[in-house]
Amino acid sequence: MSTHEAQQEQSVRSARDGRNGYPTAAWHKAYQQGSRPDLRVPYRAVHLSNGATVPLYDTSGPYTDPEFEADVRRGLPPLRDGWIRQRGDVEEYDGRAPRPEDDGLRHTSPRGGLRNLDAVFPGRPRRPLRAQEGTAVTQLAYAKRGIVTPEMEFAALREGLDPELVRAELAAGRAVLPVNVNHPEAEPMVIGERFLVKVNANIGNSAVTSSIEEEVEKMTWATRWGADTVMDLSTGRNIHSTREWILRNSPVPIGTVPLYQALEKVDGRAEELSWEVYRDTVLEQCEQGVDYMTVHAGVLLRYVPLTAGRRTGIVSRGGSIMAAWCLAHHQENFLYTHFEELCELLRAYDVTFSLGDGLRPGSISDANDEAQLAELRTLGELGRVARELDVQTMIEGPGHVPMHKIKENMDLQRELCDGAPFYTLGPLTTDVAPGYDHITSGIGAAMIAWWGTAMLCYVTPKEHLGLPDRDDVKTGVITYKIAAHAADLAKGHPTAQAWDDALSDARFEFRWEDQFDLALDPETARAFHDETLPAEPAKTAHFCSMCGPKFCSMRISHDIRARSEQEQGMKEMSDRFAAEGNRVYLPVAD
Amino acid sequence: MSTHEAQQEQSVRSARDGRNGYPTAAWHKAYQQGSRPDLRVPYRAVHLSNGATVPLYDTSGPYTDPEFEADVRRGLPPLRDGWIRQRGDVEEYDGRAPRPEDDGLRHTSPRGGLRNLDAVFPGRPRRPLRAQEGTAVTQLAYAKRGIVTPEMEFAALREGLDPELVRAELAAGRAVLPVNVNHPEAEPMVIGERFLVKVNANIGNSAVTSSIEEEVEKMTWATRWGADTVMDLSTGRNIHSTREWILRNSPVPIGTVPLYQALEKVDGRAEELSWEVYRDTVLEQCEQGVDYMTVHAGVLLRYVPLTAGRRTGIVSRGGSIMAAWCLAHHQENFLYTHFEELCELLRAYDVTFSLGDGLRPGSISDANDEAQLAELRTLGELGRVARELDVQTMIEGPGHVPMHKIKENMDLQRELCDGAPFYTLGPLTTDVAPGYDHITSGIGAAMIAWWGTAMLCYVTPKEHLGLPDRDDVKTGVITYKIAAHAADLAKGHPTAQAWDDALSDARFEFRWEDQFDLALDPETARAFHDETLPAEPAKTAHFCSMCGPKFCSMRISHDIRARSEQEQGMKEMSDRFAAEGNRVYLPVAD
Repeated sequence: MSTHEAQQEQSVRSARDGRNGYPTAAWHKAYQQGSRPDLRVPYRAVHLSNGATVPLYDTSGPYTDPEFEADVRRGLPPLRDGWIRQRGDVEEYDGRAPRPEDDGLRHTSPRGGLRNLDAVFPGRPRRPLRAQEGTAVTQLAYAKRGIVTPEMEFAALREGLDPELVRAELAAGRAVLPVNVNHPEAEPMVIGERFLVKVNANIGNSAVTSSIEEEVEKMTWATRWGADTVMDLSTGRNIHSTREWILRNSPVPIGTVPLYQALEKVDGRAEELSWEVYRDTVLEQCEQGVDYMTVHAGVLLRYVPLTAGRRTGIVSRGGSIMAAWCLAHHQENFLYTHFEELCELLRAYDVTFSLGDGLRPGSISDANDEAQLAELRTLGELGRVARELDVQTMIEGPGHVPMHKIKENMDLQRELCDGAPFYTLGPLTTDVAPGYDHITSGIGAAMIAWWGTAMLCYVTPKEHLGLPDRDDVKTGVITYKIAAHAADLAKGHPTAQAWDDALSDARFEFRWEDQFDLALDPETARAFHDETLPAEPAKTAHFCSMCGPKFCSMRISHDIRARSEQEQGMKEMSDRFAAEGNRVYLPVAD
Repeated sequence: MSTHEAQQEQSVRSARDGRNGYPTAAWHKAYQQGSRPDLRVPYRAVHLSNGATVPLYDTSGPYTDPEFEADVRRGLPPLRDGWIRQRGDVEEYDGRAPRPEDDGLRHTSPRGGLRNLDAVFPGRPRRPLRAQEGTAVTQLAYAKRGIVTPEMEFAALREGLDPELVRAELAAGRAVLPVNVNHPEAEPMVIGERFLVKVNANIGNSAVTSSIEEEVEKMTWATRWGADTVMDLSTGRNIHSTREWILRNSPVPIGTVPLYQALEKVDGRAEELSWEVYRDTVLEQCEQGVDYMTVHAGVLLRYVPLTAGRRTGIVSRGGSIMAAWCLAHHQENFLYTHFEELCELLRAYDVTFSLGDGLRPGSISDANDEAQLAELRTLGELGRVARELDVQTMIEGPGHVPMHKIKENMDLQRELCDGAPFYTLGPLTTDVAPGYDHITSGIGAAMIAWWGTAMLCYVTPKEHLGLPDRDDVKTGVITYKIAAHAADLAKGHPTAQAWDDALSDARFEFRWEDQFDLALDPETARAFHDETLPAEPAKTAHFCSMCGPKFCSMRISHDIRARSEQEQGMKEMSDRFAAEGNRVYLPVAD
């Protein structure tokens, strides 16, 4: 939205005491009113020292609204509940009964059938929703029928765009709007080449480390810094319960890889997986409210041998599990053979497919090889099937890809997948910098996003080495917000440039506090400045520690501008003088 | 050089106790013997657990040779002294007498004429060298005459390339080899599109903070992590002395912006600058051994008004100083009007021009505007003058440039400057991330390097906010080494891919220690791994903390490979069986 529009909207003026949940007191939660009373679109209003307000896209949810009292044991309010029910095409039902193995307790607990009671989400009891028999409740189905839903309007207003553009892109399959009918807490957002580039943050406990509380905290933390979606990739115990807590508290769409939980249910033995176990897991997650699911349906039996000669084989967990299953049974991937059935299941909840790239390259050496591209062709084929059945679909991509091979990925994906949103990990542009893979991949991510990738899956500094902690999550999100925003600028998203201009104006005018407050990360910008020049006067000084007081290019530029304006003024006077016949005294009006 | 060649070279086997000056005990200083006894080219030999050695380009100088005893008060040995003198075209002379104002003491010290004795470099007394009357002692002049100097051979062997290629690229003006005859300590290296992408690290005290010792330490620290050149941008007191200490201890070429010191000599008043003060400063720095100098000769009087309408005016310090001078005197830039005289001065010492981009954009909004491009055309014109006079020349560029405008910079520069090496700051691809500008600019740096930029000037996290400390210097260098190496891969430099392959092999084979040792920053990689899985057995484990023991895609890939080899073996057996007529028993040989 434009600055002008934003300023006209109601702005929740939270106190300037910094306790608004944002990293700086100058950020305020504000709302733009949509076409109906219950459609209020949140944004972040950055209040500047010169009285101006800069509106920025906001993913932090109700937590940063000072009028909202957060309670992770109660969960977020079900924002979309009314919209969903008013359409009259869903039904409540009893749902699948939770089982001990949902939390990985079948094989590992001596108490067998008991649930880990501490982990159960204490919030409101909930009966799941699903589509009434014979109806399609997906945003794709509505879009195809020409309906602009409140979700579409919400997502459009967030980006300052026309809701009809969102509908049209959804209908064409070039965008997705992931909103499970059982995740009414989520604030709608749209993923597609025509929209702002989105960032996903992965979280998730593993068998080795981490707890439920930590994962919920990582989710809110990631969205605080700008994550547009979060994937819960938990693989250890309490998968079901962790996910429930995350969903009930998440203002952004949640993605999962159901295969991870299915594998836990068969005690980690890939060959024991079956369509039945997998289907049951997907149903469980549909009812909980997962908004999009990575499905490795493109790892076909005949592609597996293509990976044997690779430098680093298969590096996708899901890809390697399905490859192992295919080889063990010498049968075609059950996700491929049951794909239409899977579509019908996802359609009943409006879960979006993220067709997984199980054969993505794990090293520069393996980039764009036949295994990867063969799978991409299959993903394109599956995407057509899914969209035909009204299921929203995005396509996953990259991994490790050198710069000169990145564009080929994007161009092939667009062609083979009919413009379906591309969702890529990085790509990492070199293998040699473990500990800095947020940077090796931030480079590739910015480039592929510029060329058309709709959503970027972040990579943290811990990639290849360990599980990200709180600081790593922040570093990963900030790095990827940089990549996404750089791409938005390069693509010319209509709202992108205003942010850079506002910050550069603040920089040029020595409004230090405004410069910090307009930064992606005000805390760090402020702290770095204070390290060198901690005194308060330095923040209003017309110089900085780079050059010192005698030596400031910005100050000299101001002199030049002043001089130039003076000269311009003189030139105008001189021109007028000449035009008026070089007469020293103007004639008195008759 | 290839692994094979490297292994044949003498390798200095420093002890595995980690006291070799490198960040890991597996790195060893080694030398490749050139065509003459005094031409030994250093490289970094990474010794792996499987007995293999990976040779990597090394910029750390003698400090990492355990046989070298470092003493910053004595300086480094004058590696090139013999080569320079043997050519018989230089002469020793008394040189310019140092003056108090060289260290900024004229206006600021009550003791007027006294030097700050603590700051004087204590090492060997030195009379400067210069070209004998009527000779040109530049590598460009030699290259034009078909001579492959030891410097060219040294630079070529470092990159595993043919020395003749270095000579040819120098002769064509498409590369520079910055080596002042008064900086014999420097290890020759080449900068040009056909070679490995180089990284420059800026250091330098300012009026606000920092000391001589800190700057020398920052220089060795930067080269330890891979900086190919270092620019000393000091602006406060002790400029002359700081530079002397840095030069005498630097194994890499040193660049400066003489204008900064000249401005100090006129007490910071740009309008008091003159060709005479500037010329005297350049002479002083030529005699000390500065290898390349940024000269803002392209900021022409008529271009200054082009900046008045910019969002952020002139952000280059040198550019703003010259603009202020031009406006104050309403005269053409004295660096432009005296350019040929300056060429003659630089030629006598083989100082390389870095023609400064005084009008580079300081915000996304100002990128590729008329001010910037007008200056670039002038730099192209000046480059032709310089090369005609046998002075090596590179051209400076970027600043803040969005991704979609980067390639235009490179293409225009190549065309307007006849392929002279491009040396760019970043570019920063967005303005909104102060505190993370190593990343905003690392993205742009990787891209412009892929497209042809020969050397990248690093940006640290403190850019726009403060002076970089030791950690910031390291982060800046590592980020830019990533950008440079990603570009080397994308450009297909013949030695680039082997490094990634070696690391990926180690990753795939669970050789954790080798993976750390092959990392750009082994310390960080090792520390990140140990945070999650600190125990020693974890470093030989066939899994990592990302997935845990049950769930490793790499392990599954190994199974697939084994299976595939088995199947391949069975298929071969089966094929042979068929070829032999499907006979169960082979005929006994007659």
